[in-house]
Amino acid sequence: MPQRFSVATNFVNVTVRGRARHYRTVSFDGPHNAVRLIEQRLLPHQFKIVATKNFRETADAIRLMVVRGAGAIGATAAYGLAQGARAFRGRDPEKFSRHVETVFRTIQSARPTAVDPVNAMNAVHAAMRTGGTVEEKQALGLAAAEEFANEDFRHCQEIGRHGAGLIRSGMRILTHCNAGWLAFVDVGSATAPLYAAQAAGKKFHVFCDETRPRSQGAMLTAWELAQQKIPHHVIADNAAGHLMQRGEIDLVLVGSDRVLGRTGEVANKIGTYAVAVLAARHGIPFYAAIPLSTIDWNLKSGLRIPIEERHEDEVLGAWGVASIFRSGLRTSNPATHLCVRVANPSSAARNPAFDVTPPELITGIITPTGIFKPRDLWRHRSELGRTEGGHGQ
Amino acid sequence: MPQRFSVATNFVNVTVRGRARHYRTVSFDGPHNAVRLIEQRLLPHQFKIVATKNFRETADAIRLMVVRGAGAIGATAAYGLAQGARAFRGRDPEKFSRHVETVFRTIQSARPTAVDPVNAMNAVHAAMRTGGTVEEKQALGLAAAEEFANEDFRHCQEIGRHGAGLIRSGMRILTHCNAGWLAFVDVGSATAPLYAAQAAGKKFHVFCDETRPRSQGAMLTAWELAQQKIPHHVIADNAAGHLMQRGEIDLVLVGSDRVLGRTGEVANKIGTYAVAVLAARHGIPFYAAIPLSTIDWNLKSGLRIPIEERHEDEVLGAWGVASIFRSGLRTSNPATHLCVRVANPSSAARNPAFDVTPPELITGIITPTGIFKPRDLWRHRSELGRTEGGHGQ
Repeated sequence: MPQRFSVATNFVNVTVRGRARHYRTVSFDGPHNAVRLIEQRLLPHQFKIVATKNFRETADAIRLMVVRGAGAIGATAAYGLAQGARAFRGRDPEKFSRHVETVFRTIQSARPTAVDPVNAMNAVHAAMRTGGTVEEKQALGLAAAEEFANEDFRHCQEIGRHGAGLIRSGMRILTHCNAGWLAFVDVGSATAPLYAAQAAGKKFHVFCDETRPRSQGAMLTAWELAQQKIPHHVIADNAAGHLMQRGEIDLVLVGSDRVLGRTGEVANKIGTYAVAVLAARHGIPFYAAIPLSTIDWNLKSGLRIPIEERHEDEVLGAWGVASIFRSGLRTSNPATHLCVRVANPSSAARNPAFDVTPPELITGIITPTGIFKPRDLWRHRSELGRTEGGHGQ
Repeated sequence: MPQRFSVATNFVNVTVRGRARHYRTVSFDGPHNAVRLIEQRLLPHQFKIVATKNFRETADAIRLMVVRGAGAIGATAAYGLAQGARAFRGRDPEKFSRHVETVFRTIQSARPTAVDPVNAMNAVHAAMRTGGTVEEKQALGLAAAEEFANEDFRHCQEIGRHGAGLIRSGMRILTHCNAGWLAFVDVGSATAPLYAAQAAGKKFHVFCDETRPRSQGAMLTAWELAQQKIPHHVIADNAAGHLMQRGEIDLVLVGSDRVLGRTGEVANKIGTYAVAVLAARHGIPFYAAIPLSTIDWNLKSGLRIPIEERHEDEVLGAWGVASIFRSGLRTSNPATHLCVRVANPSSAARNPAFDVTPPELITGIITPTGIFKPRDLWRHRSELGRTEGGHGQ
C-alpha cells in the first residue's frame, strides 16, 4: 500500500500555513480497517505511507518505530485498539471483552515504558464500555480514537496560537531534536509556533541542531521545515554556542518528554540542557512547548526522572544513505540505508538519551492553555488539567 | 611502503607511560630520504605508515590531510624542505638556492593559511644559509628539521609535566576534539597531561566528546587513548552537560588553535565554548594546553579571529566504515570507507569550524613553561617567548 507524496487519505484536510496538506502522521482508513502511518524510519530519504492491516501490525509499527513521538504513538495505539475491536466477528460481549483485552495488552507491550499509548487506549476502552452491543462498542471505540487524534491536533494548534506571538519577522530561531508534526498527529509542539507564525505571514529563519546521536534535528525537523518551505539550516550541536555568541540566535524553541508540574523542570532530548545554559548566558529567550499530557504532577524532583541510557552504537556510528562510494562498494539502490562505524573500533560509548533543564533557565512553557513561567505551573494546575492523584491528567 | 602496527623506524624510541613506542606521527628516514607519516585519513579503522618519496609527495600529504595538526604539519614541512634540499644533485650554491625556494613555495602552497609550516621551514632555511657548500647546507637543513621535531616533542613533554599535577587518581576528565600525539610529532598538547599522569601511576577515566562534525574525538582521541590503554568512553557532544550535572566530570582538558596573548581568549574547535560555559556553571576546572607557537601576541580581540566556515557536507553527513548492510549493498572490503548522507537531502547547513572562549571561563593555560591564568599571559610574555613584533614567537 505504499504511496508517494500528496497521498489523499479519507481524512479531514489539514491546513498549515494556508495550504492544504492531505495527510496526517497518523490516520485511520475506515473501509479497510487500517491505520495509516508515515514510515518514519525511511525519512528524510524516502517518503512512504504504510497501512497496518490488523492490530498486531499496528503494535509492530509502534515497536519497530515506524511511528514515534508521544502524540503520534498515543493516536496509533488508540486507532490500533479500535481497529482490533472492529475486527471481532460475533455478538457475545464477553468474548468481545476478552478479545479487546488481548488487543490492549498486545499494543501496550510494544512500548512498555511509554505512558501515552496506555492513556490513549484507556480513553478508547472507556468509550467502548458505554455501548450495549458489540457493534455499538466497535463504533464508540473508533469514535473515541478519532476524538483522541483530533484533540491531539487541536492542542497542537493551540500551542501554535500561543507560541506564534513570541515570533517576530526577522528572527533566527534555534530548535533541538524533533517535536514536530511527525511526533504528533499533526502540527507538532515545538514546531507549532513556527507554522502558526508562518501562516500569519511572518518571515524568519530556523537553525536545526542536528541532535546527535540519533540526528532527529537533521533528519526529521529539517525535513518537516523543508516540506513547509520554512528557510532553515542544519548545524552541528557544537555550533549553537558560537551562533549565540555572534548574535545570530534570537529565540530557542524545544519540546519536552516530561515537565514536572511541581518544580518546572523540563526533561528533553540530550543536549537541551546545554542549549538552555548557553541561551541564559546570552539572554536569549528559551521556551519549551508541550501538550498537557506531558506534565507530570507527581514527581517532586528532576533527579528522580529516570534517564534512559540507549545502545552505544548510536554514538559510535551514524545512519544515512550512501552518497559517496569508494572502491569495492556496489549498490543497486542509491537510497540504501546503512550504518557506518565512525568511532575507534575498540572504544565504548556512554549514551544518556535525555537531560533535565532547571526552571531558572526556562523563559516559559508554551501549553495549549497559554504560556506559563515554569515555576507557576503548580499554581495553575487546575486550568492545566490536573486531577487529584493523576499522572499527566 | 605501508606497514602495520609497531613499525620500527630508524628514529629514537619514544617512551610513553613507561612503555616504548616505536613510531612518531612524523619522522624522517635518512637512507631513503623519505618523510614517514601515520596515514591519518585511515584512522581509526586502519593503521598505516606512509613514506613520501620526494618533497612534492610531502606537500601532497599536507594538502590531502594525510597529516594534520599544527605541530605535525610543522615538522612535516621542516622535513619536507630538508628532503627536497637533499635531493639536489650538484655543487652550485646559486642553483641549490633556487631549488630550495621552489621546494619552500611548493610545501607552503599545500596549506596556504597555516602558520606552522612556514615557521618550521624558516628555521630550516636559516640553518642551511649558515653552511658553505651544498653538502653542508643539506646536512644542516636536516639537522634543523630534526631539531624542530625534537623541540615539538620536548615542549609537549613539558606540557605533560606541568599538566599532570592537575590530575588525581579517580578523576573523570572530559576532552574535546583531538590535540593528541597525532596532531604533533608525539605526546600531544591536551593529551600530554594524561600520558604523564598515567606514567606516574595515576588511574583516571576519560570522556571523549565525539566532536561533530568531523568526529576527531571519536575517531582520533579515542584511538590514541585505546593505544595507550587509558580507560575512556566516547560521548555525543550533547551529553557533556548532563554528565557535568550528575557530577561525573572533574576536569576538562582541551587544546587550542590560537590563544590571544593580549586577552587570554582561546580559539579552538567548534563546541569548545559550550563545554567551557557548562564547566564554569558547574565549577569544573577548564584548562587549555598549548605549545608556545600557538600564542598570538598581536591580535587585540577574539572577535578579530577569522572563523573558517567549512563545507556543509561535513554537517549533513558522516564518514566511517560500513558496518551494517541492508539489501542491495555489497563490498569486497569490510573496512571500506564511505560517507553517508544523514540530513534531509533538500536542507543546507552552516558549518563554523572554530569558536572563541573568553578568559573568564578558563581556569588556566598549560604551556611548556608552566600554567598561567589566561589574563596573565601578557605579563609573562618574555618567559613565554614573545619577541617584539613576532607572531607566535
